[in-house]
Amino acid sequence: MPDLPPPLDTPLRTLLGPGPSDTHPRVLAALARPTIGHLDPEYLRIMNELQQMLRRVFRTQNPMTLAISGTGSAGMEAAVVNLIEPGDSMLVCVNGVFGGRMADVAGRAGANVTKIECPWGEVFSVDDIKAALETSRPKVVGIVMAETSTGAWQPIEEISRVVHEAGALLLVDVVTSLGGVPVEVDAWNIDAIYSGTQKCLGCPPGLAPVSFSARAMEVILNRRTKVQSWYLDISMLASYWGTERVYHHTAPINMTYALYEALRIVLEEGLDACFARHRQNHLALRAGLETLGIGMAAQEGHQLPMLNAVHIPPGIDDRAIRKGLLDRFNIEIGGGLGAFAGKVWRIGLMGHSSRRANVLLLLSALEQLLQEAGHAFEPGVSLAAAGKIYSAAAK
Amino acid sequence: MPDLPPPLDTPLRTLLGPGPSDTHPRVLAALARPTIGHLDPEYLRIMNELQQMLRRVFRTQNPMTLAISGTGSAGMEAAVVNLIEPGDSMLVCVNGVFGGRMADVAGRAGANVTKIECPWGEVFSVDDIKAALETSRPKVVGIVMAETSTGAWQPIEEISRVVHEAGALLLVDVVTSLGGVPVEVDAWNIDAIYSGTQKCLGCPPGLAPVSFSARAMEVILNRRTKVQSWYLDISMLASYWGTERVYHHTAPINMTYALYEALRIVLEEGLDACFARHRQNHLALRAGLETLGIGMAAQEGHQLPMLNAVHIPPGIDDRAIRKGLLDRFNIEIGGGLGAFAGKVWRIGLMGHSSRRANVLLLLSALEQLLQEAGHAFEPGVSLAAAGKIYSAAAK
Repeated sequence: MPDLPPPLDTPLRTLLGPGPSDTHPRVLAALARPTIGHLDPEYLRIMNELQQMLRRVFRTQNPMTLAISGTGSAGMEAAVVNLIEPGDSMLVCVNGVFGGRMADVAGRAGANVTKIECPWGEVFSVDDIKAALETSRPKVVGIVMAETSTGAWQPIEEISRVVHEAGALLLVDVVTSLGGVPVEVDAWNIDAIYSGTQKCLGCPPGLAPVSFSARAMEVILNRRTKVQSWYLDISMLASYWGTERVYHHTAPINMTYALYEALRIVLEEGLDACFARHRQNHLALRAGLETLGIGMAAQEGHQLPMLNAVHIPPGIDDRAIRKGLLDRFNIEIGGGLGAFAGKVWRIGLMGHSSRRANVLLLLSALEQLLQEAGHAFEPGVSLAAAGKIYSAAAK
Repeated sequence: MPDLPPPLDTPLRTLLGPGPSDTHPRVLAALARPTIGHLDPEYLRIMNELQQMLRRVFRTQNPMTLAISGTGSAGMEAAVVNLIEPGDSMLVCVNGVFGGRMADVAGRAGANVTKIECPWGEVFSVDDIKAALETSRPKVVGIVMAETSTGAWQPIEEISRVVHEAGALLLVDVVTSLGGVPVEVDAWNIDAIYSGTQKCLGCPPGLAPVSFSARAMEVILNRRTKVQSWYLDISMLASYWGTERVYHHTAPINMTYALYEALRIVLEEGLDACFARHRQNHLALRAGLETLGIGMAAQEGHQLPMLNAVHIPPGIDDRAIRKGLLDRFNIEIGGGLGAFAGKVWRIGLMGHSSRRANVLLLLSALEQLLQEAGHAFEPGVSLAAAGKIYSAAAK
C-alpha cells in the first residue's frame, strides 16, 4: 500500500517531562483487553469498583466521584461550568499557566472573574486569599494545587478555611498532584476537584477524575439555568454513574480499563508509600542537579516532588540539550511555558516514571550533554550525590 | 489485598449492538504501545498521518480535519458550539434520540432552536427542509445521517443544496455512518461533520473525528464572542493540529494510536469494499430475520446496513432474549431507546463486527432462544436464508 502511511510504530521513550508519564506495563495490558459495551453488567461492575478506588485516592466519601470522558482540561471545564451560572462571580488564583487557563474557562462560562496573581514559582498565602475575598465576595474560588508550569506546591487546607468562612465554594486543580502528594478532599473540605490520569496515576491521558461535595451538588442541582455543556453536565452524568445507569454518552471503555488497573496499582503500593517514593526520587534528583549548579525554580519549601522546574544554567542551549536527551537517550523532559520559556526545564518524576533508575539515567545523560556543551563540573558528581540519598534511605 | 477489587478481568463478548463494535485485534495491539509525549516529533508525525487518513475517510480536502479528545457526543458539541453564537438561529431535524440531543446542545449554546420532526424510523424529504427554511432562516441546519436509535438512513446531498441556497451552513452527524456507507464531505458540500471511533471504524470509544469546511472556518474565525468551551475551541485546536503545534491540552496518546491503526485497516480494505461488506452482511441478516417474522423498523429504502432496528415479535420478552444472548452466547445487541423502548432490538453490524461469522452466530442463537420462548418457525430457516445471500455473492 504505497499510498498509505507506514504501519504504526512508536519509539520507546522514558517520559520525564510534565506529563504524560510512563504508563505501567500492567496498565498497557489492561488497555488492550477486548472492548465490551458501556451498558454491559460487567462494565457497570468495573465502573462501580473504579469509583470506589477513586474515592480512596481522593480520600473522600463523595458519591459524585467519577471519571470525565476527556483529559484533565475537560475536568477543569466540567468543574467550572457545573458550578458557575452566567453572572456568578469567581475568584481565580493565577501563578502559572493553569490558573490562567481556569480564568479563561470561567470567563467563557459567563462568570465575572476576579484574578489575583503572584509571581510564577511562588504560592498564595492565606492572607492573600483573605484580602481578595473581602473585596470580591465570590461564589467560587479556584486554585491550582500543583502548578505544572512552575513546580510550585500550593497549600490548600488553610485556604479552604477562609474560603468557606467567606461562604464560597472551593474548586481545586490536582491534575499533577493526585497520587504524588497527599490530597484530602474531605479533610480539607474541597467542593470540586479534578485531576488527569497521565501524571502520578501512571495511566495514559484521556480521562479526568473529578469529585463534587454534597454542598457543590446542592448548588448544581438547584441551578436556574442548564449547564452550558451537555457533554459535561454532572447532573446527567450522575444518572449514568449512579444507580439508575441511564445512558448518557458512550464511555471510553478501554481507557476505563486502564484507569481501573492504574488505581489498583497505586492502592496496592499504598498512598503513603507512593508519596514517600515520589519524595525520595525528588530529593535524589535535586541533590544531583545541585552539584551541577542547577537549582529549583519554585519557592523554597513549596517545591513539588513530581514536577521539578529547574533553572537552565547560563550559556546552556535549552533546545539543544532537550533534543540531545530525546535523540540520543530517548528521554523526554519539558521546556518552560509562558514566562518560563527558555529559562527552565521541567523534569517530571510522576507515577511509574518516579523510579531510581530514571533519576540515575537522567543525571548520567545530562552530565554527558552538559560536559559536551562546556559546562564545568567533576564527572560523576551528580550520580554520587543522588546515590547518597538512596544509601541513606536504605539504612 | 482483601480490601481491593479483583484484578481487571473482562468478558469476551461479540458486540452486535448500537456501538461500541468489536475492536480489531490490531487496534488493541496499537492501544498497548508504550505512551510517548504529545509534543514528541514522532507523535506529531502520527498526528499528521492520522489527519491525512481522516481526510480520505471523510472524502475531504479540509485542512481543519482532526480528532476531538472525547467521544462522539463531544464531537457533536464541538461542531455546534464553534458555529453558534448566542442568539444565532439553528434548525435541527429530529427523528430520533440524536437529533433531539443536538437540539439540546444547540439550546445550551444559546441558539434560537427551531425543531422540525418526523416520525421515528422515517427520514426528512427535501421538501420538508425547504419548507422549514422558508420560515426560520437559520444560520445552521443540523441533521443526523444515521439515526442510531432507529436505523434510518437520511440522504444528505439534496438537502445540502437547499440548505446552501438558503444561505445556511450544514452540520451533519455521521457517528454511525462513517466507514459503513458513503460519506462525501466535499462532494456534498458539508460544512461541519462529526463522528465517533467505536462504530464502523472498529476502534474503542474515546475520540471524535471532525471536519470543518473553509466556509465554516471563516465563520468560526470571525466570531464576535469566544467559543463557550475552551476544551472544544476549534481555533485553539487548529494551532496544535496545524503547523505551529502550539500546546493546547494533552492529547489522548494511546487512543490516537488506536485510531491510526483503525483508519489504516479501513483504508487497506478500501472504502468501497468496506461499504460492500457492510451491505452484504446486512442483506444476509435481514433475509434471515425475515424468515423468523422479524422486520425492519426504519422506512423502506432508508434502512442503514450497519444499524438494524428490528421489530420484536409479538409475545416475545425483550429483556429475556437480550439477557439470554448475553449470558449464554456472550452476544450483545441493543434495546430500543425512547419511543422504541421495548418495541425494537438494535442489531449492529459495524466495522470489525460486520462479519459473516457474526451474522450466522446471531441467527443461530436467536433461533434457539425464540424457539424456547415458543415462537413458531422451521429450525434452521434463518441460516439457510442468510446462506443464500452469501452463496449468491460467492458466484
